[in-house]
Amino acid sequence: MLTKNQIKYITQLKQKKFRDLNKVFVAEGFKVINELLNSTLLLEHIYITKQLNFTVSKEFVTEITEADLKKISSLTTPNDCLAVFKMKEDRLPKPSGLKIALDNVRDPGNLGTIIRLCDWFGIADLVCSNETVDVYNTKVVQATMGSLTRVNIFYTNLADYLKDANEPVYGTFMDGTNIYKTDLPTSGIIVMGNEANGISAEIEALLTAKIAIPRFGDLQQTESLNVATATAIILSEFKRGN
Amino acid sequence: MLTKNQIKYITQLKQKKFRDLNKVFVAEGFKVINELLNSTLLLEHIYITKQLNFTVSKEFVTEITEADLKKISSLTTPNDCLAVFKMKEDRLPKPSGLKIALDNVRDPGNLGTIIRLCDWFGIADLVCSNETVDVYNTKVVQATMGSLTRVNIFYTNLADYLKDANEPVYGTFMDGTNIYKTDLPTSGIIVMGNEANGISAEIEALLTAKIAIPRFGDLQQTESLNVATATAIILSEFKRGN
Repeated sequence: MLTKNQIKYITQLKQKKFRDLNKVFVAEGFKVINELLNSTLLLEHIYITKQLNFTVSKEFVTEITEADLKKISSLTTPNDCLAVFKMKEDRLPKPSGLKIALDNVRDPGNLGTIIRLCDWFGIADLVCSNETVDVYNTKVVQATMGSLTRVNIFYTNLADYLKDANEPVYGTFMDGTNIYKTDLPTSGIIVMGNEANGISAEIEALLTAKIAIPRFGDLQQTESLNVATATAIILSEFKRGN
Repeated sequence: MLTKNQIKYITQLKQKKFRDLNKVFVAEGFKVINELLNSTLLLEHIYITKQLNFTVSKEFVTEITEADLKKISSLTTPNDCLAVFKMKEDRLPKPSGLKIALDNVRDPGNLGTIIRLCDWFGIADLVCSNETVDVYNTKVVQATMGSLTRVNIFYTNLADYLKDANEPVYGTFMDGTNIYKTDLPTSGIIVMGNEANGISAEIEALLTAKIAIPRFGDLQQTESLNVATATAIILSEFKRGN
């Protein structure tokens, strides 16, 4: 049974300002919740519509009706359970090591895919400009699953961060040097830009190197790679060794 | 002005069986339609709600109301125009050259991204199992834009196709050989599997080599790469040269 206040509290968490105020976020579905339970994240509460095998003590679980779940869920087809977790503590990115920095990436699916790529390639820190979509947006949480807890995601003023960094800063541009023929370091910052506009002029001025993923098609069309697939190729190239 | 029959005809094209019956499909929005007009595709008709600068003769364009566009559109926010195009003729994949084959890829966004990757990396042929999501699904058309017309997309019984192919057939598996340390040919077929189940047992039996994208994270979690980002990394590796 859910009270009106509980419904209001959880529904408001669809908005970033209420998530930030309460320092909590929502995850849905058995698989995602289970992955988050098996991490260092702290659970606030789980709501279930049927018996589910979560390894948490009873006081953290409330059985609710499907009608109530529908009220608090962000999914078109709610998925038997919904949990509220406490946000991770922010920590400063490490001064060295390979990092990805996002300059105003807006699509939750792209951010989710990039977080999973960072996890796969052992990238400890993902630096996001303050304009980048919120990592605790429901769509991002659903897409990243456990990766969310294994990558340190740090929101900041990206220009200030890059000015203070004592590391090479890479950005992808059509006229950059061929990434397959460039010596790539094991420590540095790789900036990925906005879906429609790429890297902003302010950030471009702070780059120390411009790289390019060569296009192999016969017809040199203007079409560009999606930011998430470009990140996949660039990370693979930085990490593969020679 | 749209007649009831026209509304019915275009609305039915949301379903694969009616698209196949009429050998046409729908594209929406100025940018997508314009890219398709600048290809070898044949236009059937464009419906617009306001004056738009398409370079086609008048008899191909009908001005309709926003209410009518809403009736025939697949988008939540219809986008000033909708066009019906004739499908491309299928052609058999070339006997040599690098190809991607999809074994039951179900997500339209993934197929769209993979088509754009094929276009980028100059892959002429994309072979799809009959169970793979339809390339003329609205979401695929909207995601791929012009790439759709530059890559030959061939649906077939994938097992039969691979049995007849005189080329090396690659598939990605966790226990495959490290792709960064494998000599990769310039001609061959790379099979990518279903989002949830990977490559099916029937297709696995037809592979000539298993490759793997190494995972670099400290914690070896079970989480896998998304099929579209895995395709990006694999294509980059096959095409980069040594």
